[in-house]
Amino acid sequence: MNDCFPTDTHASIAGDTIARAAIYPRNHLAKLSQSEVNTLIDQTDQGLYPLIRKCVLAVLNSGVNSDDGAAMFARFAQFSIEFERDPRGLKLILNHAPAHAFVDGTLIETIHDHVFAVLRDLVYVRRLQSPQAPNADSPTDLIFQILRHAQVFDRSNELSCVVCWGGHAVPKEEYDYSQAVGRELGLRRFDICTGCGPGAMKGPMRGALLAHRRQHHNHGRFLGITEPGIIAAEPPNGVVNDIVIMPDIEKRLEAFVRVAHAIVIFPGGAGTFEELLYLLSIRLHPKNATSALPVILTGPTSAAPVIEAYLQFIEQTLGPEACDMLSVIVDAPSDVASAVQAGQGRVRAQRIEQHDAYDFNWTLHIPAELQTPFDPTHANMAGLNLSKDQPIGALAIQLRCLFSGIVAGNVKPAIQAAIHAEGPFSITGDPTIISALDRLLNQLVAEQRMKIQGDYEPCYRLTLAS
Amino acid sequence: MNDCFPTDTHASIAGDTIARAAIYPRNHLAKLSQSEVNTLIDQTDQGLYPLIRKCVLAVLNSGVNSDDGAAMFARFAQFSIEFERDPRGLKLILNHAPAHAFVDGTLIETIHDHVFAVLRDLVYVRRLQSPQAPNADSPTDLIFQILRHAQVFDRSNELSCVVCWGGHAVPKEEYDYSQAVGRELGLRRFDICTGCGPGAMKGPMRGALLAHRRQHHNHGRFLGITEPGIIAAEPPNGVVNDIVIMPDIEKRLEAFVRVAHAIVIFPGGAGTFEELLYLLSIRLHPKNATSALPVILTGPTSAAPVIEAYLQFIEQTLGPEACDMLSVIVDAPSDVASAVQAGQGRVRAQRIEQHDAYDFNWTLHIPAELQTPFDPTHANMAGLNLSKDQPIGALAIQLRCLFSGIVAGNVKPAIQAAIHAEGPFSITGDPTIISALDRLLNQLVAEQRMKIQGDYEPCYRLTLAS
Amino acid sequence: MNDCFPTDTHASIAGDTIARAAIYPRNHLAKLSQSEVNTLIDQTDQGLYPLIRKCVLAVLNSGVNSDDGAAMFARFAQFSIEFERDPRGLKLILNHAPAHAFVDGTLIETIHDHVFAVLRDLVYVRRLQSPQAPNADSPTDLIFQILRHAQVFDRSNELSCVVCWGGHAVPKEEYDYSQAVGRELGLRRFDICTGCGPGAMKGPMRGALLAHRRQHHNHGRFLGITEPGIIAAEPPNGVVNDIVIMPDIEKRLEAFVRVAHAIVIFPGGAGTFEELLYLLSIRLHPKNATSALPVILTGPTSAAPVIEAYLQFIEQTLGPEACDMLSVIVDAPSDVASAVQAGQGRVRAQRIEQHDAYDFNWTLHIPAELQTPFDPTHANMAGLNLSKDQPIGALAIQLRCLFSGIVAGNVKPAIQAAIHAEGPFSITGDPTIISALDRLLNQLVAEQRMKIQGDYEPCYRLTLAS
Amino acid sequence: MNDCFPTDTHASIAGDTIARAAIYPRNHLAKLSQSEVNTLIDQTDQGLYPLIRKCVLAVLNSGVNSDDGAAMFARFAQFSIEFERDPRGLKLILNHAPAHAFVDGTLIETIHDHVFAVLRDLVYVRRLQSPQAPNADSPTDLIFQILRHAQVFDRSNELSCVVCWGGHAVPKEEYDYSQAVGRELGLRRFDICTGCGPGAMKGPMRGALLAHRRQHHNHGRFLGITEPGIIAAEPPNGVVNDIVIMPDIEKRLEAFVRVAHAIVIFPGGAGTFEELLYLLSIRLHPKNATSALPVILTGPTSAAPVIEAYLQFIEQTLGPEACDMLSVIVDAPSDVASAVQAGQGRVRAQRIEQHDAYDFNWTLHIPAELQTPFDPTHANMAGLNLSKDQPIGALAIQLRCLFSGIVAGNVKPAIQAAIHAEGPFSITGDPTIISALDRLLNQLVAEQRMKIQGDYEPCYRLTLAS
Repeated sequence: MNDCFPTDTHASIAGDTIARAAIYPRNHLAKLSQSEVNTLIDQTDQGLYPLIRKCVLAVLNSGVNSDDGAAMFARFAQFSIEFERDPRGLKLILNHAPAHAFVDGTLIETIHDHVFAVLRDLVYVRRLQSPQAPNADSPTDLIFQILRHAQVFDRSNELSCVVCWGGHAVPKEEYDYSQAVGRELGLRRFDICTGCGPGAMKGPMRGALLAHRRQHHNHGRFLGITEPGIIAAEPPNGVVNDIVIMPDIEKRLEAFVRVAHAIVIFPGGAGTFEELLYLLSIRLHPKNATSALPVILTGPTSAAPVIEAYLQFIEQTLGPEACDMLSVIVDAPSDVASAVQAGQGRVRAQRIEQHDAYDFNWTLHIPAELQTPFDPTHANMAGLNLSKDQPIGALAIQLRCLFSGIVAGNVKPAIQAAIHAEGPFSITGDPTIISALDRLLNQLVAEQRMKIQGDYEPCYRLTLAS
Repeated sequence: MNDCFPTDTHASIAGDTIARAAIYPRNHLAKLSQSEVNTLIDQTDQGLYPLIRKCVLAVLNSGVNSDDGAAMFARFAQFSIEFERDPRGLKLILNHAPAHAFVDGTLIETIHDHVFAVLRDLVYVRRLQSPQAPNADSPTDLIFQILRHAQVFDRSNELSCVVCWGGHAVPKEEYDYSQAVGRELGLRRFDICTGCGPGAMKGPMRGALLAHRRQHHNHGRFLGITEPGIIAAEPPNGVVNDIVIMPDIEKRLEAFVRVAHAIVIFPGGAGTFEELLYLLSIRLHPKNATSALPVILTGPTSAAPVIEAYLQFIEQTLGPEACDMLSVIVDAPSDVASAVQAGQGRVRAQRIEQHDAYDFNWTLHIPAELQTPFDPTHANMAGLNLSKDQPIGALAIQLRCLFSGIVAGNVKPAIQAAIHAEGPFSITGDPTIISALDRLLNQLVAEQRMKIQGDYEPCYRLTLAS
Repeated sequence: MNDCFPTDTHASIAGDTIARAAIYPRNHLAKLSQSEVNTLIDQTDQGLYPLIRKCVLAVLNSGVNSDDGAAMFARFAQFSIEFERDPRGLKLILNHAPAHAFVDGTLIETIHDHVFAVLRDLVYVRRLQSPQAPNADSPTDLIFQILRHAQVFDRSNELSCVVCWGGHAVPKEEYDYSQAVGRELGLRRFDICTGCGPGAMKGPMRGALLAHRRQHHNHGRFLGITEPGIIAAEPPNGVVNDIVIMPDIEKRLEAFVRVAHAIVIFPGGAGTFEELLYLLSIRLHPKNATSALPVILTGPTSAAPVIEAYLQFIEQTLGPEACDMLSVIVDAPSDVASAVQAGQGRVRAQRIEQHDAYDFNWTLHIPAELQTPFDPTHANMAGLNLSKDQPIGALAIQLRCLFSGIVAGNVKPAIQAAIHAEGPFSITGDPTIISALDRLLNQLVAEQRMKIQGDYEPCYRLTLAS
Repeated sequence: MNDCFPTDTHASIAGDTIARAAIYPRNHLAKLSQSEVNTLIDQTDQGLYPLIRKCVLAVLNSGVNSDDGAAMFARFAQFSIEFERDPRGLKLILNHAPAHAFVDGTLIETIHDHVFAVLRDLVYVRRLQSPQAPNADSPTDLIFQILRHAQVFDRSNELSCVVCWGGHAVPKEEYDYSQAVGRELGLRRFDICTGCGPGAMKGPMRGALLAHRRQHHNHGRFLGITEPGIIAAEPPNGVVNDIVIMPDIEKRLEAFVRVAHAIVIFPGGAGTFEELLYLLSIRLHPKNATSALPVILTGPTSAAPVIEAYLQFIEQTLGPEACDMLSVIVDAPSDVASAVQAGQGRVRAQRIEQHDAYDFNWTLHIPAELQTPFDPTHANMAGLNLSKDQPIGALAIQLRCLFSGIVAGNVKPAIQAAIHAEGPFSITGDPTIISALDRLLNQLVAEQRMKIQGDYEPCYRLTLAS
């Protein structure tokens, strides 16, 4: 027997929590006046607390790979937050917080930031939307104010923001490819903005971070824009260094488009396709005819079939001019980065010409229909106008609503219940549109992009208009 | 004849102006939303413009030695400002601005900052005091919010703020002495906060700046706190790098006391003595019995007589315990700095013990009478309670009002007119108080501290209470 | 047919080169005097060129995973460097350099640094070792001067240097484990120093880099110390941001030990075990009895058997006190980091007590035998004194020579030829030592740690001393 | 009697010393190897110590206004330095150092820097000039190496170095004017390089420092270049933040010219006129015909007569083309700065065209006669060739030697003794030259620029060549 041999074992901290931890803000919340602290504590008493708790718990799970928000909440059911006033300002007590957010008893710095970012955004939005707020600003103005308040503009590098969209659960080839694209973007010193979570939201950030380092670029930004409805299911990945919580999904989408200097779309399921249609709805609007924003659809060779399916659908419904709005690049990460780089010059020229801000694209016109939520009732779904007898842009908006409804029918409990009761949505339209739709949806089902595991039961029924 | 000899002459730019200059904000005003720019332009249309113009013109004269505000305004009568909206935010057009604010057509950086500081503070105060403002905060809360909004706290060094008070027109020995004190404070890396202008407001800053440099201290702060009523007569000296415009003189005085980690008072006239009484009124309040704030009264040997006169008056009216609240140091700049240094430790200990902020002294109690203006009518002056039959602190407040009235009678046109019509203020009080007052005022008159040039005609008449 | 569909393909740049690229130094070589440039160009003419070319080509392959140096050299056989003088200083022309070192025609920043680091170190060492050099300094002094000249000390963080040793080709579990250890070290803001290459030299760096970012630690250091004999086979991994080229393997090992504030050893083959014996030879020297340097042997559960084999051998030959010098931790990355953290305090205390530098451990005694190369001839190997009848430290040095010889017999062509001619090395020693050796070597062979692919033919024959 | 009144008095520290203070280097001397520390201590034992002591004592008097080096040395006669080795490197013990260099027992930071700058330069020059030094470099190469070693190039701003020459004892108008010129240069972000001391060496620095601050320019440089012979008489003024000690006066002058991007000359006595002739000797050399370096001669109105006298002399001896090489500006500080600014563009263009370094003007040709000292014996003075029958540049060199001799005759004890013994220098030359000389010297005498106090006894006698 060898008494030199170690008996140390790896103490699993799975499920472990830190009983009690006091933290102090370091952002502007560190400098609240005494009356402001009172107001904040009052607000958390008046209904804001559950939302704050949910979002704080999500960010305490930053860097943990999990898309099962429900499980996470169950695991840390005892977690709670207390707010204390202090002549120095605000103090938070975290009770039973996840141990993996701490190192030797101290919160990891970026998680500390995220916790106070949650508080910052939720309280600020509450204030902006209060009845006493000075004026009813436009949604765009509101988005601008939230981003500014989050100091997004203070820390941005010039014309460097590449927004990346794609699924949070993707095959390994596609994850690796998104990381390779991030690497090429990072070598060219671009920053990455995504929806905060794992998968194609993490790959580009991780690739870019390592590449920034190789280029001595120490102030790269990894901006995650999320909203309360999805943050629990998609906690920030470990690379995100700035997080903003928008009040709803429409403002989140608009925020992406306003801050982007280029948009890269990796393939995904119905949700990603909805985002692609959102973007086409904007680009097809006549006021945006000359927009310089580069939009690139890309993936590895293994994703070529689904990319081709996307394009066929777009061509058959919205026509070749809609296809022409997308740069399609297969299996060429450095070409993606070169296309973004080439586009940067055009974006700069256009911002200067239009006296528009570098940090926020005020000039882009976003139709009001895209700024208000679509409610996927059976009636609304049946009432969608899927005919070619309308401007292409209007059809694109209808199609975006259609995919929004399908996503809801696939994942949102309330809508699933309605479908259980009333049967699948009835979708009616022109024959060419319906047949293109049939082909695309079948392919998404076949590639398991509608549902990751198990058989997929469609939530829709397609019918030709008479 | 020598044709090598130069014909170049020094083109005087006295009276010169720059016809038109466009400037863009670099502080947070650089990032206004479109609706905010609209609001700002509306506000300047609604009565705020004259105040903005006056303050901007004052800061465009930064570094120019002049205490004749009226002459300055006359000289640049054509000066005007236009506000323009721009997708990028806000743009200002300065018409007929003083040429000495520019170098080769570009505004000097700190003057550029000051211009937008004016806008920042005037607009923000307007917003805070608007009827729609969320809640009626205390004056202290308001002061805190203005300072925070001006990012005073973001840029402060730890426990380093030495507030210096004294006259804006002082003899050369006293100016040089204030510079020597600044030098010793600067060698110890203290920052200086004053009322912005020349004289004893400039000397300590200049001394400290040069000393900071010798200590490799590159982020020293030279904070000027002013208010619209005096900024024209006391434009920022050339060392001030941060300027804050408080809405009125009481908030300005309170701001000094809340941000100070030590206060150094150089001798002056009735105004400086009013400030000294303001401070004693606070220190003598029982709630402030344990305050750790060091207060130092100092000057060169040539100023020893007036310092002695101050102290005699204080001893005879408020008693030796009031004198004990002042550290008196004559002709020893490094002793002043050592006393400030020694006090820093006590201030730190007290802030920690009281959980008070390092940047803002929330704990100090300021009596409500000191937060509201005293109106020096003949009736109010006659009604001052100058008897010893009251708490010392209460008497100190009455005396502070008395000197406030004398200052007004000396310099404010409206009050001077009232005295012209009704005769001097009648001041009645206990014999010991009146005789002490008589002695002090005579000395101030004799030393030409009541009026710099010409004979002084008293605005008061002292009477013993029957 | 769908004419929207992309025809872009991923242009492989494998084998591609950049025909000609001019680069200018940015380190101190940017500021050579005219006579120094002449000297440098003369030196490269006088025999230094092949060494420079080899090392520059290696660093141009930074981040490329390859341990086949010969293949790399064959692939870029046309690569050459020209030196040009210029009034501004020095200019390099790279001909036929690997395209993967460039982004859009510009060298990746860290590779640019590495190129000039090569030049810096090779030229400086030549100068230090020239006959005109002022004095014959000790090897330790020479190592110090090379590190200082490379500005290693200027950029170091306090007491943060964790040296990690281990194989460059390791199983995936061991690579992932080394990355997890790096992550835990990085979360505690430690820096990593390794031998520059892939495998267990890369894993800890990559883990730490991502973790530093999470802690807002933007100036982490990833120091690679290499030498001309191995740089081609182990080009710097993509995380290394500082590289130093020591003149030979003994100075490289000593450099590691002098700059380390802790040493973490991951399992490997005969080479790693040689390094472990090198360290024990030092630690067992009486002059180092109180050394505070933490040494941790660690690996994942899958590596527990080989760790146990190491320890058994050490116990049976050098005794339990040698084992006690190692902290052994299995499958517990955060425990490794905690042990390093705990050791940091002792290291600090000892440096202060001994008036030793934080950056360079002058006090540690390294026996002269470890500073001079061991030449593994058959005679030297046969002459090793493997008896217990000597101080433990002396035996450790003999054992280190033994493993050094085995490594050479396994991989160095000249030694392999000698073995082919004369048969395996004959190793003779005390029975307990020989049997311990037999057991350990058999396990290394069985785990394929002596040779990655194919059957291993031993280069040694063990014999009991009569 | 008033017992509140202070008894504190200003404890004069005049003559006070600090008994013993230990200081550690923070520059590269902080990182000496053990053998290097031994060498350094050996060197100080071998004759370098008196020079080091003298220069260190001078910099300990930084910021003290005194041009009486002898008095300073007498006052601190007990001052001594000890060197100690330490595993951490080098330690200095200062015994009986001037108290005014310390604040609360700690050396003022810039003085600390200066102390180790002295050591850095004196030891480095000793090494460069040792017999074992690798090669006999040109004086220019040596100057470059000394400046580089002092990190002058590392900290320089682009093309910003304005060298200012002028007397160390000047009338108040001229001092104020030099400060006003510095202010205008500083507002344009130029840096100042002078000879380190008071007067016209301090004014421009002080003006620029305050102006830099107004432009948020926090990394301005105030470089003083001195040499052991004058540092005691001209200790660094309090604004100098970088000091370099050249081995002799010729290398100091060459260093000024090589680092300058513009040269501003304020009026002075024979010494300043010698510098002006040095510069003209260079500019008149045919190889420098196209030099872009701006040279500006300037002063206030009160200095117009002496400027005119300079120009007349130059015109009458060297001709109008020599005058044309000077821009003459009277009483117009902002015109001086504008001229420097305008010249910056030409300097940049020329450096680029000639592939010359921005930081060091390698291309300028300096005749060998200017690189070697002139020894002002009676024979050499009598042998000066003051005829017009030679190239203008050659005459300029002769005239420069002449004024060098006059300066020595005025102030250097050894030369004064020779004159006492042998009578005044005999100066013979062409009638026009001699008469021009007579006129200029008379004016310098009349304006008390040859001797500050008392009557001036000429050290020369002018004779017409037969």
